Amino acid sequence: MKQKILKQKIIKIFKNHKLSSSHALICANALINAELVGAPTHGLSRLKMYCDRINKKVINPKPKIKIKKISQSISQINANNSIGFVAADIGIKQAIKNAKKTGIGLVAVKNSGHYGLSGYYAEQAVNKNLIVFCFTNAPPAIAPHGAKKSLFGTNPICFGTPTSSRIPFILDTSVSVINRGKIRVAARMGKKIPKGVALDKFGKPTTDAKKALAGVQLPIAGFRGSGLAWMVDILSGVFTGGNHGGKVKDPFDDFSGPQNIGHLFLVMKPNLFVGNYSKRIKENIKRIKRLPKIKGVKEILYPGQSKQRRFKKNLKKEINIPPKITEDLKKLNA
Amino acid sequence: MKQKILKQKIIKIFKNHKLSSSHALICANALINAELVGAPTHGLSRLKMYCDRINKKVINPKPKIKIKKISQSISQINANNSIGFVAADIGIKQAIKNAKKTGIGLVAVKNSGHYGLSGYYAEQAVNKNLIVFCFTNAPPAIAPHGAKKSLFGTNPICFGTPTSSRIPFILDTSVSVINRGKIRVAARMGKKIPKGVALDKFGKPTTDAKKALAGVQLPIAGFRGSGLAWMVDILSGVFTGGNHGGKVKDPFDDFSGPQNIGHLFLVMKPNLFVGNYSKRIKENIKRIKRLPKIKGVKEILYPGQSKQRRFKKNLKKEINIPPKITEDLKKLNA
Repeated sequence: MKQKILKQKIIKIFKNHKLSSSHALICANALINAELVGAPTHGLSRLKMYCDRINKKVINPKPKIKIKKISQSISQINANNSIGFVAADIGIKQAIKNAKKTGIGLVAVKNSGHYGLSGYYAEQAVNKNLIVFCFTNAPPAIAPHGAKKSLFGTNPICFGTPTSSRIPFILDTSVSVINRGKIRVAARMGKKIPKGVALDKFGKPTTDAKKALAGVQLPIAGFRGSGLAWMVDILSGVFTGGNHGGKVKDPFDDFSGPQNIGHLFLVMKPNLFVGNYSKRIKENIKRIKRLPKIKGVKEILYPGQSKQRRFKKNLKKEINIPPKITEDLKKLNA
Repeated sequence: MKQKILKQKIIKIFKNHKLSSSHALICANALINAELVGAPTHGLSRLKMYCDRINKKVINPKPKIKIKKISQSISQINANNSIGFVAADIGIKQAIKNAKKTGIGLVAVKNSGHYGLSGYYAEQAVNKNLIVFCFTNAPPAIAPHGAKKSLFGTNPICFGTPTSSRIPFILDTSVSVINRGKIRVAARMGKKIPKGVALDKFGKPTTDAKKALAGVQLPIAGFRGSGLAWMVDILSGVFTGGNHGGKVKDPFDDFSGPQNIGHLFLVMKPNLFVGNYSKRIKENIKRIKRLPKIKGVKEILYPGQSKQRRFKKNLKKEINIPPKITEDLKKLNA
């Protein structure tokens, strides 16, 4: 489907679900961006879920979002159970504003929901020539080190910086070894999954994808990844006033109440300590890119580069819509 | 050796190497702490190296350390090639001061050197009831994803938070799979190292410890760990004004100039957004600790807990000094 037409369709659907025009536009842009960067798990496949949550009154389509000023640098946002995209959009914009004013901006968002891709918000800050961290937690997906039950979300660590080129450095990495989607595909195809990725329901390591689905996924690098996931849960949940410690509800399965996800945005001016950040980061990237490469590697890429390439390529094309989602669109549009 | 006696010895050695009494005390405390927490690679085994660097005039024993105020929250420190312990001690104390005043403190240090364990500085902030990040870079030790040459340091990510108990949550994790010391031991014992830990000098994966020593170590979780190491290099090097992109010199081998390592400290008040952080973090930890455990695991520990247990145990004992270090002490004391 042509991108413009798809965008109008999504906007119409969200407006039919009582979102304002401006909020519907924010959501449509975020969903289409996910498709364009090659992350369909965070794109249209979630549209119906968001609408279902609005219908079941666990997302508030007409939120009264309050921004509380703690200082010139620090703000807190109570998103009033808005859709995550809208809360995060307001959050990152406020953090950018604070950083532009004082050099550093810290914004905590509570009572929000799943906001899609962290990198999407990080890019907003980087495009304004700022350094940025985005943290958010998510429903239980991976087991803390030593546990045989999931509790942490995939809890991404997201960091971005201007690079002096048009392609930003955006590290947006979950702390699970592989994502659940890949395990699902392996289960369907009857393929094995790598070692060290998951435990079965008895807490034993397994390479059987079906047993892994019934069990738990593991964090990257054992105790280290588990610690990083815990850190993200603390920063985005405990610190902001959001849910934490396994209490974030699964948006697809649990309609018993709002998610109350928390987000934390930290934004800094790159020239706080050096006059020539742009030159320095260019030199840094150049040094790393010209290292001798292992066999089969043509180019050393910095985080965000391959995503940007996919985006550029996809921007010229129509968006491919699977039958299931065409069906969703028809139903929701009715 | 009794801790008190050892401490006096170290202070005397540093004073003989022209450090002031207060700087010598800071260094002695940091080195002894590393021994007590069970990280001897960051303890006495480095004493001679620091003295050698002073003798070769690549560490400045009488630094004129300048603190520049950027704002109430933000400071920059030019450490004037001081020993890293002293620069980092001043840096974290300034960040704590700024955070106490405004809610958030950001301090960049440049022209510093190896500062020992990040967790040691994080603990200072946590003991003042603050949340903290410490970043520092280090000499080349691991290869960026796709490269067959080392460039990133082990570049630790260090995060700390008060827990409402006396044992702080301190995540202090390097981004290399295992440390070089372990590969050295395996090489000596003729043992194999695990898969995915290192490449040989031709860029091929190897489990032969000797070949690994001639080759490169790998970051945790492939592209993800590589991205995290890159992030730390940017934050502590590019951003602060320190060396970066593989230019930090090895303190043991390269006396051709100062290291110019950069550190970045970010400190935040835990109650910025919630009135009851202490209660919330306690609840968070409780929920995770009571998860069902995998076979053989008695207790789920949070980062910093086992270190604190070692510290407590070792605090009552004499410090065991290997013959090589006894020799160092004698020579340096002469």
